[in-house]
Amino acid sequence: MVQPSPSYTITLRVETPASQRATSELVAQVAATGASLTGVDIAHSGADRLLVDITCDAVDGAHSDRVVEALNALDGVRVVKVSDSTFLMHLGGKIEVNPKVPLRTRRDLSRAYTPGVARVCQAIADRPEDARRLTIKRNTVAVVTDGTAVLGLGDIGASAALPVMEGKAALFKQFGGVDAWPVCLDTTDPDEIVRIVKAMAPVYGGINLEDISAPRCFEIESRLREELDIPVFHDDQHGTAIVVLAALLNALRVVGKEMADVRIVVAGTGAAGSAIIRLLQAQGARHIVGFDRFGAVHCGRVADDPYLRRLAESTNPDGFSGSLREGLAGADVFIGVSAGDILDGSDIAAMSTDAIVFALANPDPEVDPLAAAAHATVVATGRSDYPNQINNVLAFPGLFRGLLDAGAREVTDEMLRVAAVAIAGVVSPEELNASFIIPGVFNPRVAEAVAEAVRRVCEAEAHA
Amino acid sequence: MVQPSPSYTITLRVETPASQRATSELVAQVAATGASLTGVDIAHSGADRLLVDITCDAVDGAHSDRVVEALNALDGVRVVKVSDSTFLMHLGGKIEVNPKVPLRTRRDLSRAYTPGVARVCQAIADRPEDARRLTIKRNTVAVVTDGTAVLGLGDIGASAALPVMEGKAALFKQFGGVDAWPVCLDTTDPDEIVRIVKAMAPVYGGINLEDISAPRCFEIESRLREELDIPVFHDDQHGTAIVVLAALLNALRVVGKEMADVRIVVAGTGAAGSAIIRLLQAQGARHIVGFDRFGAVHCGRVADDPYLRRLAESTNPDGFSGSLREGLAGADVFIGVSAGDILDGSDIAAMSTDAIVFALANPDPEVDPLAAAAHATVVATGRSDYPNQINNVLAFPGLFRGLLDAGAREVTDEMLRVAAVAIAGVVSPEELNASFIIPGVFNPRVAEAVAEAVRRVCEAEAHA
Repeated sequence: MVQPSPSYTITLRVETPASQRATSELVAQVAATGASLTGVDIAHSGADRLLVDITCDAVDGAHSDRVVEALNALDGVRVVKVSDSTFLMHLGGKIEVNPKVPLRTRRDLSRAYTPGVARVCQAIADRPEDARRLTIKRNTVAVVTDGTAVLGLGDIGASAALPVMEGKAALFKQFGGVDAWPVCLDTTDPDEIVRIVKAMAPVYGGINLEDISAPRCFEIESRLREELDIPVFHDDQHGTAIVVLAALLNALRVVGKEMADVRIVVAGTGAAGSAIIRLLQAQGARHIVGFDRFGAVHCGRVADDPYLRRLAESTNPDGFSGSLREGLAGADVFIGVSAGDILDGSDIAAMSTDAIVFALANPDPEVDPLAAAAHATVVATGRSDYPNQINNVLAFPGLFRGLLDAGAREVTDEMLRVAAVAIAGVVSPEELNASFIIPGVFNPRVAEAVAEAVRRVCEAEAHA
Repeated sequence: MVQPSPSYTITLRVETPASQRATSELVAQVAATGASLTGVDIAHSGADRLLVDITCDAVDGAHSDRVVEALNALDGVRVVKVSDSTFLMHLGGKIEVNPKVPLRTRRDLSRAYTPGVARVCQAIADRPEDARRLTIKRNTVAVVTDGTAVLGLGDIGASAALPVMEGKAALFKQFGGVDAWPVCLDTTDPDEIVRIVKAMAPVYGGINLEDISAPRCFEIESRLREELDIPVFHDDQHGTAIVVLAALLNALRVVGKEMADVRIVVAGTGAAGSAIIRLLQAQGARHIVGFDRFGAVHCGRVADDPYLRRLAESTNPDGFSGSLREGLAGADVFIGVSAGDILDGSDIAAMSTDAIVFALANPDPEVDPLAAAAHATVVATGRSDYPNQINNVLAFPGLFRGLLDAGAREVTDEMLRVAAVAIAGVVSPEELNASFIIPGVFNPRVAEAVAEAVRRVCEAEAHA
């Protein structure tokens, strides 16, 4: 089921005889490997030799190697260079820092820097709350990681996590107009991370924690929330939870069921799973059972683990103690944030009628989405090559846009909930169907709707 | 000697009778306070009343208040609003973060973010040195402060220091093409600062320490230099030292004296003073005496202070033990990085013929530059309203441009020295005279020349 992807676009520079037949053979040979050809450009043409740039999408590195081998196998053909457009795009990084004020004259300089800036500094020293008005704090978020749980790659460290944090910062600006800056910390000690984030907080109006492994992420987030006067948000938890709730609200509309009535199975009780459960409960869900690799989470099993115990106490009211497969029988909703290929079509077939399946493990979903679709009414994944992609980019830019606009000092569960309702609301009743329960990531109304909803809650809570 | 400054530009919105005479009176009244009028705009015109926006440069807040009072004293005139262009320029901060890559299509997203970014992360995890190629580390510097010695304001804290660090970041980009980010730390503990900067270093290709009080700045800098594999530079020390050396090289050319021969008096032995002394010595200066508020620094006096003892051991070979005034008698060069108005014209008159005076205390120089110019051949200050401004912006953008281009892992004294020589060299022999010993801050050749000189030393040292 893995197909060539634009995330693996390669350009091969090939030396070949100067004949129509030779170039036709190149194209045929690339196609025969299963790569998806997107361009053939002549880089240099001589009397008897050509330099040809062949651009194509491959599946992965092994596939790319096979394309090179296939071309080299042709008579008189030699691949002289392979370049990878994803790597080319990353050269020198993906974000930059720019002045917002002119610095062309002495007059400019004396306002933006010395001596004029001294008065602005003094004003903030006298009235610390003015920092939100007179500095970048007003629009700036730190994207903080320790590199311990990066994408599906695991603990790859602070330095290797930077490309993700840069991408996140770029998305923050593109989709929410938020200035975001990567903070990749070369330490995995929660005490140290809390101390560092507290110390650097003066520059920021919000903290977005990212790709920090569980259960450390819970402690870091809750301590920072307690000790800082700016919103602290762990995207792997709450960003995912917001988009899952948004998608589920619309999926329930499609199948005509109510949040309070449906039986929900959540596979995976790490950062994302526990946050999803909490947010679904805030929206009125009452019948949720969480599963980890040992089976259903129930009070009898998890007494020793403070995180799972808290989860067990608020879920699984009947004390179900079976396996994930057993728990799925008759369930209305499956939400997977666990591991790839742990279920098959027959497990989905055992769910209730009009089942809803969100198989969000990346890159391989918990169940093949095509097999799931044979039995469930609504299927969503985390992938961009199936309908109904659950993508955090729908949540975090608008959420922080709203928080910063409101000068919020914290982020509450109610803000997360209204963000989800706002995302769901962008899909109009006329647009809504089983293949379109969630707006596309490029829909500009999403961030606006989320920001507006969050601002309204911030203001209401400020006046409460 | 204090004059109206563009760093204190105010706009007064004034309600006044609608007559030619009334507006003429406004202008005359503003001029009478000594403010420098730069604009008169009619914001709203009615049958018998006008709203007039009067823009003028004032000296300070008290002066601004006097302008308002003077206008309110006029018959039928009322000042309805005073706005300050320096504050207006700071609203929302002075820098922003922007994507450098397109994020408009699914194809873009799958390269800059998931799933494509995972391959880039994995490449860095496999080969950590690739971070300098594939991330913002290649072009990014942290501007780190704890807010303990901000401009002339002293210990105003991390939050109030942010406008200076933003301005610095803006200058880094404008003059050196360097992406710089403010790191304002809410702690003054050197251990903690060292730990934090080490932990956050993966994102950066260099560290610019800024406005950290002495002697803590020495310890922080030397420990970070030892423990990090990227260049660490304390601008208050070395940036000032580079520009002072550059100016002194040209001043000595003007008066026809040699570095090795001149007697140099340095007032102020804090961050800037000690770095200036070290760099002048690297260029061959042999007769330097440092002074602090207690008089000359000599071995007999400062045995208990490790910093001053090191200074005393390398300076003041004759063990001079008198006051600053006494030490100036017969000296060729005075360099002040201490406090305002500690000397007068008679002290300068006591120096040797063709004396050189750099009175760099801000905002008020050690000696009135006009009084100094009556006796010295070359006078320089830190101020923009006299000739020969010693301004760090001549050094740091080009220095870091060179360090980043070369992928330098440290900054050496030799790099600082060649940076100074490069700045001095931008002033051609034809341009050089007592009023033009240093290029202007907007001269684009300065950063280029500095970067080129630094790159050359980096490469030479890498191959040594």
